[in-house]
Amino acid sequence: MKPFMDENFLLSTETARVLFHEAAKDMPIIDYHCHLQPREIAQNIKFDNITHLMLGGDHYKWRAMLSWGVEERLIRGDGDPKEKFIAFADTVAHAIGNPLYHWTHLELQRVFGVDTPLNKDTASEIYDYTSELLQQDDFRAQALVDKFNVDYLCTTDDPVDDLSFHQAIAAEGKLKARVLPTFRPDKAVNVDRAGFADYIQQLSRVAGMEIKSTADVLTALERRVEYFHALGARISDHGMDTVPYGEPSFKQADKAFKAAMAGEEMKQKHIDSYRTVILAGLGAMYAQRGWTQQYHMSAMRNNNTAMFRRYGPDVGFDSITDQPIAHNLSRLMDLQDTQGQLPKTILYCLNGAANGIIGTMLGNFQQGGIKGKIQMGSGWWFMDQKDGMEDQLHYLANLGVLGTFVGMLTDSRSFISYPRHEYFRRILCNVIGNWVENGEYPADMETLKGLVRDICYNNAKEYFGI
Amino acid sequence: MKPFMDENFLLSTETARVLFHEAAKDMPIIDYHCHLQPREIAQNIKFDNITHLMLGGDHYKWRAMLSWGVEERLIRGDGDPKEKFIAFADTVAHAIGNPLYHWTHLELQRVFGVDTPLNKDTASEIYDYTSELLQQDDFRAQALVDKFNVDYLCTTDDPVDDLSFHQAIAAEGKLKARVLPTFRPDKAVNVDRAGFADYIQQLSRVAGMEIKSTADVLTALERRVEYFHALGARISDHGMDTVPYGEPSFKQADKAFKAAMAGEEMKQKHIDSYRTVILAGLGAMYAQRGWTQQYHMSAMRNNNTAMFRRYGPDVGFDSITDQPIAHNLSRLMDLQDTQGQLPKTILYCLNGAANGIIGTMLGNFQQGGIKGKIQMGSGWWFMDQKDGMEDQLHYLANLGVLGTFVGMLTDSRSFISYPRHEYFRRILCNVIGNWVENGEYPADMETLKGLVRDICYNNAKEYFGI
Amino acid sequence: MKPFMDENFLLSTETARVLFHEAAKDMPIIDYHCHLQPREIAQNIKFDNITHLMLGGDHYKWRAMLSWGVEERLIRGDGDPKEKFIAFADTVAHAIGNPLYHWTHLELQRVFGVDTPLNKDTASEIYDYTSELLQQDDFRAQALVDKFNVDYLCTTDDPVDDLSFHQAIAAEGKLKARVLPTFRPDKAVNVDRAGFADYIQQLSRVAGMEIKSTADVLTALERRVEYFHALGARISDHGMDTVPYGEPSFKQADKAFKAAMAGEEMKQKHIDSYRTVILAGLGAMYAQRGWTQQYHMSAMRNNNTAMFRRYGPDVGFDSITDQPIAHNLSRLMDLQDTQGQLPKTILYCLNGAANGIIGTMLGNFQQGGIKGKIQMGSGWWFMDQKDGMEDQLHYLANLGVLGTFVGMLTDSRSFISYPRHEYFRRILCNVIGNWVENGEYPADMETLKGLVRDICYNNAKEYFGI
Repeated sequence: MKPFMDENFLLSTETARVLFHEAAKDMPIIDYHCHLQPREIAQNIKFDNITHLMLGGDHYKWRAMLSWGVEERLIRGDGDPKEKFIAFADTVAHAIGNPLYHWTHLELQRVFGVDTPLNKDTASEIYDYTSELLQQDDFRAQALVDKFNVDYLCTTDDPVDDLSFHQAIAAEGKLKARVLPTFRPDKAVNVDRAGFADYIQQLSRVAGMEIKSTADVLTALERRVEYFHALGARISDHGMDTVPYGEPSFKQADKAFKAAMAGEEMKQKHIDSYRTVILAGLGAMYAQRGWTQQYHMSAMRNNNTAMFRRYGPDVGFDSITDQPIAHNLSRLMDLQDTQGQLPKTILYCLNGAANGIIGTMLGNFQQGGIKGKIQMGSGWWFMDQKDGMEDQLHYLANLGVLGTFVGMLTDSRSFISYPRHEYFRRILCNVIGNWVENGEYPADMETLKGLVRDICYNNAKEYFGI
Repeated sequence: MKPFMDENFLLSTETARVLFHEAAKDMPIIDYHCHLQPREIAQNIKFDNITHLMLGGDHYKWRAMLSWGVEERLIRGDGDPKEKFIAFADTVAHAIGNPLYHWTHLELQRVFGVDTPLNKDTASEIYDYTSELLQQDDFRAQALVDKFNVDYLCTTDDPVDDLSFHQAIAAEGKLKARVLPTFRPDKAVNVDRAGFADYIQQLSRVAGMEIKSTADVLTALERRVEYFHALGARISDHGMDTVPYGEPSFKQADKAFKAAMAGEEMKQKHIDSYRTVILAGLGAMYAQRGWTQQYHMSAMRNNNTAMFRRYGPDVGFDSITDQPIAHNLSRLMDLQDTQGQLPKTILYCLNGAANGIIGTMLGNFQQGGIKGKIQMGSGWWFMDQKDGMEDQLHYLANLGVLGTFVGMLTDSRSFISYPRHEYFRRILCNVIGNWVENGEYPADMETLKGLVRDICYNNAKEYFGI
Repeated sequence: MKPFMDENFLLSTETARVLFHEAAKDMPIIDYHCHLQPREIAQNIKFDNITHLMLGGDHYKWRAMLSWGVEERLIRGDGDPKEKFIAFADTVAHAIGNPLYHWTHLELQRVFGVDTPLNKDTASEIYDYTSELLQQDDFRAQALVDKFNVDYLCTTDDPVDDLSFHQAIAAEGKLKARVLPTFRPDKAVNVDRAGFADYIQQLSRVAGMEIKSTADVLTALERRVEYFHALGARISDHGMDTVPYGEPSFKQADKAFKAAMAGEEMKQKHIDSYRTVILAGLGAMYAQRGWTQQYHMSAMRNNNTAMFRRYGPDVGFDSITDQPIAHNLSRLMDLQDTQGQLPKTILYCLNGAANGIIGTMLGNFQQGGIKGKIQMGSGWWFMDQKDGMEDQLHYLANLGVLGTFVGMLTDSRSFISYPRHEYFRRILCNVIGNWVENGEYPADMETLKGLVRDICYNNAKEYFGI
């Protein structure tokens, strides 16, 4: 029996152990997609206690607690922080097989040096011990980031954001990690969502121009792309709960745009045209600047109306959807490719049953001169767990060229989520170790170490051009 | 090499063996969903021979025999019982990797003490030996149930059923297991199916009221829910080959209802409204009484018209469908939740590719104060096999809290299907054993045994409130 | 650690090793579906170098090279053959976990006796060594086929083909393998594709009759079925990117047919009717002659418009689609079955997420007297890899009767793809070995060897009636 979560956690072969300890472990981190708040980084916030740090904004954990039947008061409510942590400890102790079990213990081990398994009996002591540590300056936000050898950290930002916190962080120059903004223009794409007209007003203001048409939206967005670019952005991000494809006509798109601005009903085909025209237009801007676009597909959000009314979005009531994506995604990417304006693209699909769709879509639009121009994103959100990551690695290996993979990201709102990179690296080394020890690839350790270092760091560095 | 199906069958680690033998094996069974005939239990029927017992009503086995090219005469026809058993033996011997192989040998071992592998050479002797045993009274229906330490046994019953056999069984009081009815109102929900109008007449009679509208259907159903409740029912069951969602309007629903009663064409949107209104209305009745509803989704039934004409439904010509379910299921559950009337719910989807959809849908509607209010049902029907159960356990563990799981059910028409609980428990202990021995969870045997006992029995007992 | 790709490659248990070496390895090959060019067989072509042999027509390899960022010149372009091979070697060395890695090394080992792992450092020497061997007569096309103990080889042919090369090969009588044509009438089915009217003219000519209606199309096709039958064909093949089902009415079908012939727009429902009527009509012809039909479903082809314009179809820009198939496939097969005219059928679905759909569809239409009348095809195209084949074996075993399986085919354009049969056989023996050594099936080696020989050869021989 392997000991519980020791230094060889998840490394079941000697090859895996050598690869992890000698090649993967010490590579820096490029966290090219996360949801940390730039303000909290800039202000180098201090955490009151482990509940604030671990449970303050993490809807993965809230969701698990509700599944365990914990009362709202101790989840999103105003309950006592220590009681909340004990309720979380009891939840996690019953969540055998859940990634939260491993994330939480990696966080306790790596951040606080706590090796005790967390459960309702050990929670109180751990709460007290860690809360004391959190009073120290080297447990403030920036110190936590630096503890994990983070080279780059890409936040997720709205085009209308002034990025003042990014500028402040850079000006201060204390954080070792470079904090870059990411351009996420969902609100300009989703013409059919409430608030679109107001958003266009905001965009108009920050772009310094009137916006009267779809073409104007693109012009205004391009000004913001320029602004983001000047502050170091090289990546965009698109939340695509459904993948649109419609006639790529500005005339059709304008019918949706004008209806939205006037608060009128619009036809689905005009919505599709608008989204298609905007996405293709943005793709061209990205391609011209060497940016990478990310497509995050097949989430179904805010399923619980009562909870949405109470708390708003992103609080733990989202799930996976099963709408077909292959046809529209193929057409949308081909439209960009045919115009010679398809940028580097990372495809993430929340529906693991579509791994084969995504894994084969890559090959349709690869390009000479770029290693893995189109990427299959690492296991995302609900798929960000051992089984999900192993699946993603196997699909990508079977259907693409694994050696091009840009690897892991946290996608997290938490300052202590970096052990997820370690988790990924252990799984990666273990998958490769299994192949090698099963005689499926030569035991050429130098080649294998190079491959591992590339996937952990070098590929991302080269791919994103940062 | 492990011996063939010995006491450590499917238990590949020491942890798994300890968990199974010391915690799982001796827990009683709550078979909270099956298709045993109450009449056959009440009459304590005797079986002529093993063909009658094993092949008499089991379409899983008929289907396999046809795949092996066995002639109809020896499957659903009037062939000689011994010849039929030999044909089945030959089928099963070639069905390596099929759950029937394991189920059949567990049944031979546990019911008859027969350890010989079944094939066409051993079948005749096994037929003779078991047929002799079946003449004894302790191989009649009730003795078979009691042999397996069954605490509760929930049959599947139509709302119009008078439940006289349930009353007779209770009155007789000989069976150790308590036999409870389950409310399955599919015929009142499927307004678009042939026979709906006739069914409403029957419902009208047993409910003692005229039924002239959708609202009347609900009132009549509520009378039957009351009747079932008084006789111990705490669970309902819905066969949802497709998941409906339509405008939850009685006015729209009545358009479908009235068309159906008049034998006229109806629009899909009115059918959807009717089904939605009825399902939400029933959900409220269940919620008010602390019942649990089961949704069985994504079966495609009676695919073979020739065989349907010859034999009717449920004879082995059903399969899995791939219609998207996420959106409608989310809306249907949210409708109930928003009205504060979403009962405890178990979601079963026959399409294993939707495990991620189901596993994440749970979290949208969990509730403080109930452990695992929304459950992911155990591997159902075609997914009720080792790979399917392992998948279900992994998806549930990754996406929910495994410690809340209410575990296994037989869903069977056979009096000797209870070894499927043993099969599940072995797989459960093995999955957990693998995690523990791989260092992914502490080897705290008392906690682990508690977890196993909960999933085998305690969770179901508490959840269903029986 | 197992040595790299030695004689026990992929055989992880003793049982697997015995089964492979003593039962599987020496069985002849029935390659019942491939894309070799009859002309190249008849002309017994010689290969200039390993680039010509390995990379000359294999879009799997081109696709991988583009993923690795290789320039077009060295893929589909006019680059130097040796440079191309080195670029391929570099690609494959980074494609750890990809079936190309194993296929390529099996090809080097079995065809050329080269055991060196291929990478950019070893490529030049391997190129020179193999190119020299390729000058010898026993490395010409026919010798390569015969080296692999191929009994039957079924090419893929258009109904209008005169099959002169098949006749020439048979007349010459030198090749040990019998080369049979396969009837692939896609162009006559796809009434909505460009070129349909021209194709009907060709069909009219070779069938020697006017074609003025859907019924005429079927009559003409039947003449060609007869022609193919006389030259040994016993199998047909249908590429069904989507699975059609429409009203099976000649009147409706004719609306599509006539529109197509006149170059006019047509309605989707008429297209569906036409395709349904033609497929059902062909099914009847096949059933009457004891043929087998193959349905290849869920490919999405020619996704990259720029590359399609440059190179045409089948050059590496295809992928998997996710359209639902269950309903239409059930109706299409039931239509044939109800008419008593459903032939033996092999179902291949490129979307592995539909394995459960396919695995259960089989059982709906099996028939007494034929072992496994409806088959689940072996892992196809993108699924033709270790994980994909293991999945297919598990789904088939769980949902059908594995002992009826007709096994592997190459589906390849390459003269040295036969090691894929060896690859499959190793995986098959390993899967069975795992079950046996895990105590899930008795270690009765004679029975197991029989099962393996059946799946490798005997089942196909009996099933196809060749």
